[in-house]
Amino acid sequence: MFGWHWLLEWQTPYEFHGHLIEKVFAEEKTPYQHVTLVEFTRFGKGLIIDGKVQSTLYDEHIYHELLVHPLLLSLPKPPKNVLILGGGEGATLREVLKYKSVEKAVMVDIDEKVIEFAKKYLYEWHQGAFEDKRTSLVITDGLKFINETKDKYDAIILDLTDPIKDSTSYMLYTKEFYEKLRGILNQGGGIVTQATSPSFSLEVYVTIYNTIKEVFKEASASYTYMASFDGLWGFVYGGVRPDLLSEDEVNSRIRERISGQLRFYDDYSHKISFSLPKNIKSEFKKITKVSTEKDPIYVPA
Amino acid sequence: MFGWHWLLEWQTPYEFHGHLIEKVFAEEKTPYQHVTLVEFTRFGKGLIIDGKVQSTLYDEHIYHELLVHPLLLSLPKPPKNVLILGGGEGATLREVLKYKSVEKAVMVDIDEKVIEFAKKYLYEWHQGAFEDKRTSLVITDGLKFINETKDKYDAIILDLTDPIKDSTSYMLYTKEFYEKLRGILNQGGGIVTQATSPSFSLEVYVTIYNTIKEVFKEASASYTYMASFDGLWGFVYGGVRPDLLSEDEVNSRIRERISGQLRFYDDYSHKISFSLPKNIKSEFKKITKVSTEKDPIYVPA
Amino acid sequence: MFGWHWLLEWQTPYEFHGHLIEKVFAEEKTPYQHVTLVEFTRFGKGLIIDGKVQSTLYDEHIYHELLVHPLLLSLPKPPKNVLILGGGEGATLREVLKYKSVEKAVMVDIDEKVIEFAKKYLYEWHQGAFEDKRTSLVITDGLKFINETKDKYDAIILDLTDPIKDSTSYMLYTKEFYEKLRGILNQGGGIVTQATSPSFSLEVYVTIYNTIKEVFKEASASYTYMASFDGLWGFVYGGVRPDLLSEDEVNSRIRERISGQLRFYDDYSHKISFSLPKNIKSEFKKITKVSTEKDPIYVPA
Amino acid sequence: MFGWHWLLEWQTPYEFHGHLIEKVFAEEKTPYQHVTLVEFTRFGKGLIIDGKVQSTLYDEHIYHELLVHPLLLSLPKPPKNVLILGGGEGATLREVLKYKSVEKAVMVDIDEKVIEFAKKYLYEWHQGAFEDKRTSLVITDGLKFINETKDKYDAIILDLTDPIKDSTSYMLYTKEFYEKLRGILNQGGGIVTQATSPSFSLEVYVTIYNTIKEVFKEASASYTYMASFDGLWGFVYGGVRPDLLSEDEVNSRIRERISGQLRFYDDYSHKISFSLPKNIKSEFKKITKVSTEKDPIYVPA
Repeated sequence: MFGWHWLLEWQTPYEFHGHLIEKVFAEEKTPYQHVTLVEFTRFGKGLIIDGKVQSTLYDEHIYHELLVHPLLLSLPKPPKNVLILGGGEGATLREVLKYKSVEKAVMVDIDEKVIEFAKKYLYEWHQGAFEDKRTSLVITDGLKFINETKDKYDAIILDLTDPIKDSTSYMLYTKEFYEKLRGILNQGGGIVTQATSPSFSLEVYVTIYNTIKEVFKEASASYTYMASFDGLWGFVYGGVRPDLLSEDEVNSRIRERISGQLRFYDDYSHKISFSLPKNIKSEFKKITKVSTEKDPIYVPA
Repeated sequence: MFGWHWLLEWQTPYEFHGHLIEKVFAEEKTPYQHVTLVEFTRFGKGLIIDGKVQSTLYDEHIYHELLVHPLLLSLPKPPKNVLILGGGEGATLREVLKYKSVEKAVMVDIDEKVIEFAKKYLYEWHQGAFEDKRTSLVITDGLKFINETKDKYDAIILDLTDPIKDSTSYMLYTKEFYEKLRGILNQGGGIVTQATSPSFSLEVYVTIYNTIKEVFKEASASYTYMASFDGLWGFVYGGVRPDLLSEDEVNSRIRERISGQLRFYDDYSHKISFSLPKNIKSEFKKITKVSTEKDPIYVPA
Repeated sequence: MFGWHWLLEWQTPYEFHGHLIEKVFAEEKTPYQHVTLVEFTRFGKGLIIDGKVQSTLYDEHIYHELLVHPLLLSLPKPPKNVLILGGGEGATLREVLKYKSVEKAVMVDIDEKVIEFAKKYLYEWHQGAFEDKRTSLVITDGLKFINETKDKYDAIILDLTDPIKDSTSYMLYTKEFYEKLRGILNQGGGIVTQATSPSFSLEVYVTIYNTIKEVFKEASASYTYMASFDGLWGFVYGGVRPDLLSEDEVNSRIRERISGQLRFYDDYSHKISFSLPKNIKSEFKKITKVSTEKDPIYVPA
Repeated sequence: MFGWHWLLEWQTPYEFHGHLIEKVFAEEKTPYQHVTLVEFTRFGKGLIIDGKVQSTLYDEHIYHELLVHPLLLSLPKPPKNVLILGGGEGATLREVLKYKSVEKAVMVDIDEKVIEFAKKYLYEWHQGAFEDKRTSLVITDGLKFINETKDKYDAIILDLTDPIKDSTSYMLYTKEFYEKLRGILNQGGGIVTQATSPSFSLEVYVTIYNTIKEVFKEASASYTYMASFDGLWGFVYGGVRPDLLSEDEVNSRIRERISGQLRFYDDYSHKISFSLPKNIKSEFKKITKVSTEKDPIYVPA
């Protein structure tokens, strides 16, 4: 018997992946996004936003640990104030709150309905992080928040949707935006952004690196295979150099700074994640584009 | 932007139709069936059972009117007692209750959860029919009911799922089963069954006709194009000959027997529905198979 | 084991049908079209043009017979000169040449490569029609031919691709074009055009009828279920009234005018094909649009 | 405009990937396999065998270099006699022939038609390797060849189709088969096999490792991301330990042993390919199954 209920996830107009859906738990069309919580046959519970697998219980820990920990561990001092843009599921927040030093974690999301959805349905993701006393939730546009905030941060984490042309997050991958972030970072601080897929949008991945490198001088790029994203996924860090951490440093800093368990990230995974495959690494020499407001990079819708 | 949430309905292992889904309203896995109420982009609200479009607001009236009215109008006398097997949405019941003469409409469905689902979510289908005083709802296996009932009926309507191999309705398309139905029909009574698709399972359609013809002597077959079923759909009537009704008779009997509106069925639609296309009609001469318990007909899963 | 080699035919952006392909026999990208001859699991040999099932051996005879014969039989006199625009497979030509009276059949196609493809690979379709002495093949743009021809015709048959926006055939469904055709018809002559699908583009079907009715005064519309087109298909005739032919007239004229066999078309199929279902017929009262060069009707790409 | 000509590659019954096809160049149903050479929009020229992307010009070099070189470079002495089972495209042969020491490369394939197909259409893959004087081509069943050969080999390369249940290669992943290979290896020799996907059939990958480890004592496993296979791909080496080669050794042996260019494989790619991700590595401790003729491992069809 053939499966009938499918997510067809289009990576490009000439490629898509079919994921069988067992059941739809909840669905909501917010003013900004179409959010659906389903049970996938392969990955278990998964969140779909606007037709893209946003994260699944199968491997969300890989994504969120690799987003957060290389940044926070490579900061010269344990972070106290951390700013998160996006990350509606609450899993990025969950990882940030594992740092004993964190006193304040500010999470900014444009979509109140998504946060409500997460609180109601995504406990396995946030695990109560929204209720943590250190958490401060702000519902507003990320760009607006950055323009208006008076605070400074030790770390800024950009857990945004892909820079689809004319989407809400489109301008949050540009040089001008990163310059604003630099302006609200404390001395020694750093940023990280998810950086799309080296498999499906390699030029975007490299351009994000180039842009962050231009603004922050120090930059590095990691990647991992995400089964639920159907390919490799990338991250770019600025202001710090996690790629230069030795394995011993990774280990000792995990011990010193983190309380609670990590499932994927350790010295070994760190090393692998910063060792880009040859065919990807070679593109860093060829692609020189920097994303600007005038000429922003984007992925095909 | 490409659609991402799809029903892929497999008609055969070498063919399927993709229907875009806007939203899932409700979903339930009962002990017997997987029932999902969705909004289709093309057809509006639709009910999916086990991966098949069961009915949609776009054209359910065509299906249910053509199932019910040729039978009930061709009975020599207006029906008083009508038995429905299946038809969980309540739309078949709705059509039956339009007959002024009907005193009792017994609806038998194996799946209590489907009825609850219908009552809760499918008002546009049943339009309150479950609450009608003449309605009597029995939750049991159709075959068991037929074996045990002491009553006789003027008309029996089989609104069953397709005879998929080893499914619950598999044996309800056989000669032996129709013989039991004949035993509980009043003098002058008749039956009708949905008879699968002349487009995708022509042999099954003709075999159902042959089987009913063998048991009831009088039989006729109708068909119509059902957009939401992605092809032609068929019905077979036994014990009566609706195909012999003149247009005038159809009209006068509609006036005499029915209270309430019909949307599809009238003298003209009647005539068209009983005029089988030449390529289908020619198969009636070639296919002689009769479905029996030992050698039942079925559609591929 | 699941099939892997598929034609996904998009009827609309929210619907598609998957047809399993057994084998690709020949494929050519001409300057105008992408033509592929395949073996379908369900339909046998089939021709795909630009992603649409153009015709298959399973049911091309239904399409081509219903296109040609109602027109040529309803002409007051047997036709001598017939003009065909499009119809690259040669099957329309094949049907025209069955008329004993035909002295000249002019076929105009814009795409020389498609004709070569047909001659080489599609014998089952044209059955040698291109070699018939009465056949005259002209490779040019249909509109250009109509503007320049000095001849007059008893019948004009438009076997064109659908009026997809900005496609080559887009303007060949407008009032202005039909007026040109009227200008090169002999007294008593008539035209026919394929008229897209009443299932997927009902408004286009009715608008073509309205447009032809406005230009030719006399018009009628037929339809049939085409399994390989995954729905109903329509035709519109102008200048003649095939719908008014009695069954006896159909029969006697077939005997008088045609030499060779018909597989689908006869008095009975004629009657059915001109009996539009109620839900389609009712649209003829509601839709009043006429297609003009300024405001042409089209189907979504 | 949506694409219409698709390969739907089923990785499991609940997952598939759609690759758009631009054109079919050649297609042949041999007694053993269905082979199709196409142009993919994303990957360029690609070979499909029985519905699976076998290899594409986009990344076949990654697969074939990682299959061949870790084995041949980790042999204590440069190889003279190399046996290849499978590898019909000729690309594995192409890599083997880059070794200056190779005197004889015996390639055994069951499917003569596939070899003819490769010679005729796949020059970009084999690049003339079939014509090399050192090449010896034997058309026979791999198991039969192994049972009957009197020769011994320095290296045996298994470039087989996946162990689909009851397929031709099904038994060529068992302990008993590997024992036969051990019997025809020269002192110091080694083997390698493609080992399916750690993404889609992780248990098979680990079981192949376990089985080779049991027979050869020395074993190691590598992997890489193959975009055209839509996930990670694995290889297992036996009798040698390429994972223990230092980066310097890789480099110096490439210089000494290989003539011609490598595109993917070098010291850096070597290191990455043998660094299994944590979530894969952890399975090696949990899965203890060994594949035997009585209880063979297989991937779902």
